[in-house]
Amino acid sequence: MGKQRSHIKIGVFIAGTGHHVASWRHPQAQADGTMNLSYLKGLAQTAERGKLDMLFLADSLSIDPHSHPNILARFEPLTVLSSLAEVTSNIGLVATASTTYGEPFHTARQFASLDHISNGRAGWNVVTSSIPATGANFSKEEHLEHGRRYQRAQEFVEVVKGLWDSWEEDALVRDKESGVFFDPDKLHELNHKGEFFSVRGPLNIARSPQGHPVIVQAGSSESGQQLAAQTAEVIFTAQNHLAGAQAFYRSVKEKVASQGRLPEEVSIMPGIFPVIAETEALAQEKYEELQDLIIPSVGLKILSTAMGGVDLTPYPLDGPLPEIELPESNAVKSRSQLIKEMAQRENLTIRQLYKKVAGSRGHHIFIGTPEQLADRMEEWFTQKGADGFNLMPPLLPEGLELFVGQVVPILQERGLFRREYEGKTLRDHLGLKKP
Amino acid sequence: MGKQRSHIKIGVFIAGTGHHVASWRHPQAQADGTMNLSYLKGLAQTAERGKLDMLFLADSLSIDPHSHPNILARFEPLTVLSSLAEVTSNIGLVATASTTYGEPFHTARQFASLDHISNGRAGWNVVTSSIPATGANFSKEEHLEHGRRYQRAQEFVEVVKGLWDSWEEDALVRDKESGVFFDPDKLHELNHKGEFFSVRGPLNIARSPQGHPVIVQAGSSESGQQLAAQTAEVIFTAQNHLAGAQAFYRSVKEKVASQGRLPEEVSIMPGIFPVIAETEALAQEKYEELQDLIIPSVGLKILSTAMGGVDLTPYPLDGPLPEIELPESNAVKSRSQLIKEMAQRENLTIRQLYKKVAGSRGHHIFIGTPEQLADRMEEWFTQKGADGFNLMPPLLPEGLELFVGQVVPILQERGLFRREYEGKTLRDHLGLKKP
Repeated sequence: MGKQRSHIKIGVFIAGTGHHVASWRHPQAQADGTMNLSYLKGLAQTAERGKLDMLFLADSLSIDPHSHPNILARFEPLTVLSSLAEVTSNIGLVATASTTYGEPFHTARQFASLDHISNGRAGWNVVTSSIPATGANFSKEEHLEHGRRYQRAQEFVEVVKGLWDSWEEDALVRDKESGVFFDPDKLHELNHKGEFFSVRGPLNIARSPQGHPVIVQAGSSESGQQLAAQTAEVIFTAQNHLAGAQAFYRSVKEKVASQGRLPEEVSIMPGIFPVIAETEALAQEKYEELQDLIIPSVGLKILSTAMGGVDLTPYPLDGPLPEIELPESNAVKSRSQLIKEMAQRENLTIRQLYKKVAGSRGHHIFIGTPEQLADRMEEWFTQKGADGFNLMPPLLPEGLELFVGQVVPILQERGLFRREYEGKTLRDHLGLKKP
Repeated sequence: MGKQRSHIKIGVFIAGTGHHVASWRHPQAQADGTMNLSYLKGLAQTAERGKLDMLFLADSLSIDPHSHPNILARFEPLTVLSSLAEVTSNIGLVATASTTYGEPFHTARQFASLDHISNGRAGWNVVTSSIPATGANFSKEEHLEHGRRYQRAQEFVEVVKGLWDSWEEDALVRDKESGVFFDPDKLHELNHKGEFFSVRGPLNIARSPQGHPVIVQAGSSESGQQLAAQTAEVIFTAQNHLAGAQAFYRSVKEKVASQGRLPEEVSIMPGIFPVIAETEALAQEKYEELQDLIIPSVGLKILSTAMGGVDLTPYPLDGPLPEIELPESNAVKSRSQLIKEMAQRENLTIRQLYKKVAGSRGHHIFIGTPEQLADRMEEWFTQKGADGFNLMPPLLPEGLELFVGQVVPILQERGLFRREYEGKTLRDHLGLKKP
């Protein structure tokens, strides 16, 4: 037993055939993974066998046919997590839902419902929709600019949390004898009137097992960090090296404290893209096998998009990244800046860069043995670069099975990770109190 | 075998403790039924054991604390049906979703996702939100009036169906060798521009097993019937006697034909509120036991609401329904007219009327033996009053268990109902072709 040492938090980001853009072409890939429910159930059960804190599903509200095939056709997250809740019993279930084209009442209900269905395992990854084309699917002529989207997101989260407080835990007395179904003093209207929303409430679902599903955030821009500091309990981030991760970690924990919150109320979980094999050489080989599956036009297109649409076609693929203006849009600014810095730091050609970015989508690539991965995770964890990690296996289910089978036991041996779930809810796993 | 004779369609409307307003006070009731997932799973499995076509969940987007306790706090329908899909394998799963405060893109995705999760068992009950207070939960100052709501609903359904056609069935080729993930000629933008919505598409989910989830409708008003005739494949309706049911049946089938559709493409399923026991006397006793559990103030309030808010408090409870003006609002007009006619036809006092309306909410009450219920169902079915029934058991699970255990075998014996599921999808059960 003993809780002297806190555990590394570990989530797995489930994305069809894996996070490598060409993973679907791999001989082992289940190419229809994003639309194959029994395959997804298998992944969820593997993650639970590894005692992971949570699994996570991303989302989008429009498709770009040139992007990662994993996102072209996939389940709607809340429905599929409700289904996965039935074949798992401990692991947290985190879904992405946008605040840009939704209604707080619908979102509050869906997550409260998932929280009931899963007995307290729901989490909401709060995002804003950054792709301008998305508006065209929602009868909007104009797309809200970055700052306004974050203002809307902040108010949206406030309304959702307020709606989650509609019913007190013991409001539904259901006393057959007296005919009193509920205590009216414990049912609350919200009566929110703000800039973006007016919502009266109450919500028509009982208070959920966690009180509030866990709030997750992934914005790395200044407004993103600000929103996260105010509301997030888990923060996903893309960090490529320890020093950067530490700086981000420090900055966010300070922002959290300045909001009057305790720094430990927020878990910072950088993405990690682990390529693992018995030896470093075999891991490198495994990575190259995936990299070689990237079709050049696809790779270049993804790099351009990641950098805010800059046109790189005029430049030689095997030359360096030219001195280009990065776009002013905040949505991709932090991301494109990180990519540019990486290109300079590692002296990469455009081809090398698109391989790197297209492959892992800018996340921290780790290539090595299970022991080395455990070392890396321990280093980032103990040196305040991370409270945990959001695993982004390049190829699924292989990458998750290897992690669970070979890395988790090492972390457990070192006392860095749980051997059994100690609680039932996602809040329990993360050490968060119930609101 | 032999398909000479078509089967009665049977769905069950799952509503917490049952459809009787005081059912939750019954000694056998599971008072927390609306929020108890294992209880709901048991109901779904019982319905499937009875080979029913579908189970149905209603919905609302606001709560009136004075209304039926079953609707105060309940699961969000799409999430809970995704969960029920995991514990059943044949029964259709129909959820209500409003067109008044939703977005077609979200609705199209959620139902397509449920259709995938359930292997082709999803149905969408298309409604408009008739309660003006609902707007206050969705940042709307004004509530759309009845006619406009139906115009919006019609366009909403058109957009959803268009989005369901985004991907052709064989669009996702996923050819690892060539690197071709999908055939661009088989991915379609919708580019809808209408009065209420502009939606470009395509939808980011593969074509679902049924092509289109089944469209259900329940409007009995003129605009409701019109919308149903254009789009519905199942129609729920409240009919209290055979002649009225026949008139409705004829009228809707004619409207369907005048839209160029085949009358058999639409199944008309009146609600039925069956109180069954070994003898008529015992069934009557069972009914009275529930009726006596209605608290008078609750009963009167429900009657007033059902009649569009008319104030009945000045009139003696044991006197006749006074000659009152019915409200002009179309939303409740057809309903309140039916109630008024019933009061006159059966010469009921206000107390008797509220007991009748509050108890069954205006639906066809049947009190008798299993044999008599089978007779009634056969009569309505063979005499063109119904293609089937939407069962609204007064008390659950008792009413459903009795139906499955005692009425279904009689209907099977008579060749009026299936002994085994012959197909896998809801469309198969209903004899509907795949769009």
